[in-house]
Amino acid sequence: MSDSKVYRSTTTAPVNIAVIKYWGKRDTTLNLPTNSSLSVTLSQQSLRTLTTASCADSYSGPDSLILNGEEEDIQSSKRTQACLKNLRQLREEIEAKDASMPKLSKMSLRLVSANNFPTAAGLASSAAGFAALVRSIADLYELPQTPQQLSLIARQGSGSACRSVMGGYVAWRSGTMEDGSDSLAEEVAPVSHWPEMRALILVVSADKKGVPSTAGMQTTVATSSLAPARFKDIVPARMAEIEKAIHDKDFETFARVTMQDSNSFHAICLDSWPPIQYLTDVSRAAINAVETVNRKAGKLVCAYTFDAGPNAVIYYVEEDSHKVAGVFKNHLPNVAGWDSEFGAAIKPNETGGLESKTVMTLKNGVSRVICTAVGGGPEKVDTHLVDESGKAVEV
Amino acid sequence: MSDSKVYRSTTTAPVNIAVIKYWGKRDTTLNLPTNSSLSVTLSQQSLRTLTTASCADSYSGPDSLILNGEEEDIQSSKRTQACLKNLRQLREEIEAKDASMPKLSKMSLRLVSANNFPTAAGLASSAAGFAALVRSIADLYELPQTPQQLSLIARQGSGSACRSVMGGYVAWRSGTMEDGSDSLAEEVAPVSHWPEMRALILVVSADKKGVPSTAGMQTTVATSSLAPARFKDIVPARMAEIEKAIHDKDFETFARVTMQDSNSFHAICLDSWPPIQYLTDVSRAAINAVETVNRKAGKLVCAYTFDAGPNAVIYYVEEDSHKVAGVFKNHLPNVAGWDSEFGAAIKPNETGGLESKTVMTLKNGVSRVICTAVGGGPEKVDTHLVDESGKAVEV
Repeated sequence: MSDSKVYRSTTTAPVNIAVIKYWGKRDTTLNLPTNSSLSVTLSQQSLRTLTTASCADSYSGPDSLILNGEEEDIQSSKRTQACLKNLRQLREEIEAKDASMPKLSKMSLRLVSANNFPTAAGLASSAAGFAALVRSIADLYELPQTPQQLSLIARQGSGSACRSVMGGYVAWRSGTMEDGSDSLAEEVAPVSHWPEMRALILVVSADKKGVPSTAGMQTTVATSSLAPARFKDIVPARMAEIEKAIHDKDFETFARVTMQDSNSFHAICLDSWPPIQYLTDVSRAAINAVETVNRKAGKLVCAYTFDAGPNAVIYYVEEDSHKVAGVFKNHLPNVAGWDSEFGAAIKPNETGGLESKTVMTLKNGVSRVICTAVGGGPEKVDTHLVDESGKAVEV
Repeated sequence: MSDSKVYRSTTTAPVNIAVIKYWGKRDTTLNLPTNSSLSVTLSQQSLRTLTTASCADSYSGPDSLILNGEEEDIQSSKRTQACLKNLRQLREEIEAKDASMPKLSKMSLRLVSANNFPTAAGLASSAAGFAALVRSIADLYELPQTPQQLSLIARQGSGSACRSVMGGYVAWRSGTMEDGSDSLAEEVAPVSHWPEMRALILVVSADKKGVPSTAGMQTTVATSSLAPARFKDIVPARMAEIEKAIHDKDFETFARVTMQDSNSFHAICLDSWPPIQYLTDVSRAAINAVETVNRKAGKLVCAYTFDAGPNAVIYYVEEDSHKVAGVFKNHLPNVAGWDSEFGAAIKPNETGGLESKTVMTLKNGVSRVICTAVGGGPEKVDTHLVDESGKAVEV
């Protein structure tokens, strides 16, 4: 007798933005990094991936994934296959111990996933994507593994995904083992420790996609003569410094280290051969604006950080919203994105003192903003993207 | 009886553009660098400073300098004073040995200097300026010192000036002595060894002056955690590599090391705190254009390098003029500067294959070009900028 039931589990997972950057792999298959990194998990109200994992005896064909309405080729994705293989093995272990459990590990998986932010925003969605994929399948399989243990699997999908399996302030410990078994995520502090952290993302209309990060990282590892010092000494010192700043809720140290590490990361990109440059004149204008706001405040009230693209992420704490986000809202009132939970209350601040050239560059280059904050980890929800008959729901 | 004669000597001195960059002082008073550097001396037909040094018993008041028609305050310039003091001491030594020599060391100096290129070009003129100042006074004083010995004095005026006392391919040896006595220029190869070297300078209309190099250097030395590896290991290795490339006339190695070292220098600037950024979107477009030209050629036929500003200097050898400079002439036919000795013969090349975005950025951002070549060192000339009565000549 065949089991006609469609098993489903749905999870949302967050985006994270690193303040100590991951750039360089010491093992490209296992996604083992050259250095530890640390990120702030962002609120899922603004940015999240929603993924339903489902399986059924009635599903025919291989595992499949529909992402934002498009069928993805996961058969040829080694990274996705590594995650699925690991999760199935864990399910098989449970099934082997308890013969009454349905043999989900033998069924095809049907995965349906959707982001609540436009792909055009140029935000790396792979971290939230793989965190949601791993978490939803782990829930479907009723796996007993902790988020930290699941981070080992998510890491193989996308390095930074290992930091999206938890909320708050999350470290990815580089580890030293060859098999990667100690290269995992660790909570540095939960959201509740320092919930006032805010992030304003300036989304820059890029003319074209830059160097993909996987290829770029390997170019840096292979060619940058400045990079070894970063991997070996500079990042470990900064990890210790920023973890203490987070524990102490010392925003000034947090801000300085965040900006220095972003600059250091882009420095080793520029030092690569051929050179990799993600920062544009618009990015530089955002840096200039942050410097001006900090100068005017007489202390560091905001910090910029840039990933592998021109978008600026600006961290600040809630009490400085007017001093920081207010200045950007004053100059960019008409771009999309201010009408969010975290953005609506921000009042335009006309006393920012930005140079007119900076303002003009931002006005011409910023296509939207995202107002968000530190947030929690993946959450199980009931809004499934696969219906009870196993059909993908339109999003 | 007073000596009413006006003594005069006039020299021209060249600009040099480093291919291994000087960025960082280990001693700010003596201008001792954190690393050796190497430059190409550029032809004085395009870029030179002309300086007349004169002295007379009849001159009253302190030493003076008129630069491009404007009186400069050299009394409060420690760097200029250090040069003048050193040169006077050497003259005094001669006068002490031979009582028949006129006591020029006791007379006030009247210096008049003019550049043959607009200050607005944003080219560092201090190297040519101090080289001309030192050479003209040394000639006036009939000093027996060699160019290398004079480089010790010019270095105290402006670090990179020590490389402008010689022509061709010039190294500035960092040295190790605390008194700076071994921090001097050395000819790596004369112009005649590799006279085919050409330089195309894309002068970028900068919106504002960036961080001055003296202040920037010290920020980098004090704050960049990536810089020590550059000073200690990376530059020494590159010096050896590029000197061999020059001896072998191996343009491909010369080009790669030149580009890598420019990128490394700008990387440690970005890694400084606060960060220093000289490259703009126009600079990036120039990098992109050079990469495209090289890709099309199937080998490195040109190399970019950037000093403390957005201007691109593009080195290539004469036989590749059409492949390199021709591409830029094709896209920037209307900017000033193509009608020089080295520029007039370049034929526009319509097959460059530059991306339209790159072309547009260059068209909007490049205000003039300078077509030049490797050239000789300072030269004594008879076109004095001070007349026989001691009066400055209008330039």
